[in-house]
Amino acid sequence: MIIDTLYEAVKNKGHVCVGLDTSADYVPQAERQKAQNDAQAVLEFNRALIDSTLDVTACYKVQIAYYEEMGLLGLGAYSETLKYIRSKGALVIADIKRGDIADTASRYAKAHFTGDFQADFVTLSPYMGMDSIEPWLKEAQSLKKGAFVLMRTSNPGMRDFEYLETSGNRKVYNVVGEKMSNVAKQYTGGCGYGIFGVVVGCTERDEAAEIRKAHPQLFFLIPGYGAQGGGAQDVALLLQNGNGGVVNASRSIITAWQKEPGSENADNAFAAEAARRAVIKMRDEIRGVI
Amino acid sequence: MIIDTLYEAVKNKGHVCVGLDTSADYVPQAERQKAQNDAQAVLEFNRALIDSTLDVTACYKVQIAYYEEMGLLGLGAYSETLKYIRSKGALVIADIKRGDIADTASRYAKAHFTGDFQADFVTLSPYMGMDSIEPWLKEAQSLKKGAFVLMRTSNPGMRDFEYLETSGNRKVYNVVGEKMSNVAKQYTGGCGYGIFGVVVGCTERDEAAEIRKAHPQLFFLIPGYGAQGGGAQDVALLLQNGNGGVVNASRSIITAWQKEPGSENADNAFAAEAARRAVIKMRDEIRGVI
Repeated sequence: MIIDTLYEAVKNKGHVCVGLDTSADYVPQAERQKAQNDAQAVLEFNRALIDSTLDVTACYKVQIAYYEEMGLLGLGAYSETLKYIRSKGALVIADIKRGDIADTASRYAKAHFTGDFQADFVTLSPYMGMDSIEPWLKEAQSLKKGAFVLMRTSNPGMRDFEYLETSGNRKVYNVVGEKMSNVAKQYTGGCGYGIFGVVVGCTERDEAAEIRKAHPQLFFLIPGYGAQGGGAQDVALLLQNGNGGVVNASRSIITAWQKEPGSENADNAFAAEAARRAVIKMRDEIRGVI
Repeated sequence: MIIDTLYEAVKNKGHVCVGLDTSADYVPQAERQKAQNDAQAVLEFNRALIDSTLDVTACYKVQIAYYEEMGLLGLGAYSETLKYIRSKGALVIADIKRGDIADTASRYAKAHFTGDFQADFVTLSPYMGMDSIEPWLKEAQSLKKGAFVLMRTSNPGMRDFEYLETSGNRKVYNVVGEKMSNVAKQYTGGCGYGIFGVVVGCTERDEAAEIRKAHPQLFFLIPGYGAQGGGAQDVALLLQNGNGGVVNASRSIITAWQKEPGSENADNAFAAEAARRAVIKMRDEIRGVI
């Protein structure tokens, strides 16, 4: 199962999930000017960063919004970025946060588990309930894919609805976690984690240990590292036996080159080397505390 | 403001929102065979249905999943469908149910309020909180667009999270409604409704009158009519003074041709005429009870 592949990748390469949330503004000026258009510039930049980080990265996450912003050409670059990652034998999470009723969900699952936009994992939003998740589960089983469902995110707004108190001294996100744990128990890989995991941010230390303990079968996709305030110690609380989660970082990696001496003459190779150093630094910070 | 345009459209043309959730399977066989590919077949079918329903339809809703399923070509057809609707002076809701953090939300807003995928309204999912809604609001103001945020949907799974009880005898969806009412009060069109409304299904009669009364400034996008169990009487409870909502129907309109005598030799013109009759029937059912 795909979750076992991710588990092995974490064991061998560390916990870093490189977020290719690539705006054309993040591409070195010289490369952007050389490219046919911004979508092409983003794609070439992504390829360079993928090549330089493959052996130190657990998986990649591609945020589709950055590509949709560039219209049809942008979605072409999105498609090619996913293909490139998979052609290298690496795993990719499509960060699409879909959530819709049954028939629509099946169509989305076909869109993102096969064809032009094929990814290994997707992100899903639970608001509409479990019948918006189940069609994905069915497709994931037959196509050997996985998903991460939003549970407790890392943005200030999470307190608006995710944190609402409901019966039994639970918050809404706890109820999402319970339902997803039930799913994970039914569809578990050899590594002990379910093929569907959840998104749990590392910005709130208080509930971290409790969430990890309550959901031993859930693999975590962890946002909030670095700029948003989460650190390696916070991440450590969300892991178990050194595995069970990948930690996403995007801008701190893909724009690392902008802070390096010589950045005014940067090309993609320069950016790729800076990204590699940023990934290794983050990987070692996390490994240092577990 | 765009919400005033929608209000006027409802007044003049009725409450029907035609859902172009168009699978290639819904296209008459002869037309599908004639087309270069399924995406082209869907686009031609959509154009025929738009032409035949323009004067009896408040707005169109295009569910992007059906187009994503066809990959890049499908998204080309999605883009052309939106352009065609807007070129006819009609309104289109992009049913994309996005919900993501600030910077990502801004990029999504640019993607769906401008360029290849420009729509008049979008649908949004509130799970991550108000900071996932606000960037859309900012873009909507400057670009004269609007949105509908999921409040209480029409699928069985809505009971999983939307219906969770929280403080003050409120459900999660009530809290979403309150926050969206606050937004609507700040950004109100001349018609009295906010530029951001909510999705409220018509399948649950019990809370309908209460929801309508609690949120006089919220315009409703209403799913659940027909096959899902909602009827004109249920819709009437969600309207006020004969306006304030559009009622989505998709399959019952776009596949109406399949139930008509002669369907074995159907072409797009045949399907378009059947769709028109289905829209008029639904429009009159709703008008008959308000």
